[in-house]
Amino acid sequence: MTNNMSDYRIRPIGIVKSKADKEVLKYSNKDIKLDRDVALSQGIDLKKSEIIINEEYLDCLDGIEDFSHIVIMFWTHKVPDNARQIKKVHPAGLKEMPIKGIFATRSPVRPNPICKTTVKLIERKGATLLVEGLDAIDNTPVVDIKPHIPFYDSPLNVKLADWMYRLMQKLKELTSPLELNESSNPYSVDIRLHPCISPDQQRSEQ
Amino acid sequence: MTNNMSDYRIRPIGIVKSKADKEVLKYSNKDIKLDRDVALSQGIDLKKSEIIINEEYLDCLDGIEDFSHIVIMFWTHKVPDNARQIKKVHPAGLKEMPIKGIFATRSPVRPNPICKTTVKLIERKGATLLVEGLDAIDNTPVVDIKPHIPFYDSPLNVKLADWMYRLMQKLKELTSPLELNESSNPYSVDIRLHPCISPDQQRSEQ
Repeated sequence: MTNNMSDYRIRPIGIVKSKADKEVLKYSNKDIKLDRDVALSQGIDLKKSEIIINEEYLDCLDGIEDFSHIVIMFWTHKVPDNARQIKKVHPAGLKEMPIKGIFATRSPVRPNPICKTTVKLIERKGATLLVEGLDAIDNTPVVDIKPHIPFYDSPLNVKLADWMYRLMQKLKELTSPLELNESSNPYSVDIRLHPCISPDQQRSEQ
Repeated sequence: MTNNMSDYRIRPIGIVKSKADKEVLKYSNKDIKLDRDVALSQGIDLKKSEIIINEEYLDCLDGIEDFSHIVIMFWTHKVPDNARQIKKVHPAGLKEMPIKGIFATRSPVRPNPICKTTVKLIERKGATLLVEGLDAIDNTPVVDIKPHIPFYDSPLNVKLADWMYRLMQKLKELTSPLELNESSNPYSVDIRLHPCISPDQQRSEQ
């Protein structure tokens, strides 16, 4: 009989290749910290990246080119092991944000430091996937890839915590220098285009 | 210097409690197989489930109740270790589907058997989350929880492989007995409600 609460082993199935090689959010002194200079300077480098799949998993990619968007699961390898103990953070390391539990945030520092990002698949060439919008730095180990399926992955009538709307706005301000237009910065997303209910709508519903 | 290609250890942070305790998709003889009887009989049991978070991670939940939808990452613990070698499957174990690489499918059998499901958060009571739409059976170990954020997780203008549209339709037929109406069966999703482009639209665009 297996013990469901035992540890499990995961193995990298590929690696990220990107011009971006510095962490935007860094673990430091039992907290996370946003490096605004890195966020600003590296934004455009994150726009396009490559994922190189290990040779032994090449067959697993068969048919992936028929999907426009894929979910990349990666291990945030720069997070030190003791950081996995952290239970709460100021989201995005911004002190002006209320302190919240890790599971209510998308912090890269978490008990199991696996991040998921949904990216646009531009092209597949053999073992290499060229993608848009992957917020993982150079040499990040990739642990899984799945097709994005809206009927499973894009629920309707979504409501977010108020602070998350403020955070989205804040990150947009912090990471959008004048020389970048909105479409070339992966952190700048027009939230009005997405199927979720804004705080204003929530209030008018109550 | 750390080797990025080394294995990583993940630890369960909680466990699923559900009336559903049988696998719908099962690994057997180097392939996956859909158990139609289980799919039919268990569908309604998967509608609502509980996630019990381990005491030590209770603080990580702070603020999660302000989100309507959360992403559950779980380990498909019934998949035997040697099944992680499989590179291709008939999606959903249906021989009528073209054989595809694991990364182009949502198969529970994969090199790192971590599944992600976006669920509706109905209620949080202490360490217990009552959720809707979790396709994980009783005692499944949960490894991470994240808030669902449409601007990251719900891209627009999504295109799927043709076979995936057929599979969605097929699964709906296979898992919708007469006594279940559409809204009570978690496998039945009206794909027209979701922001993706159908094969017909794709053809008319070409």
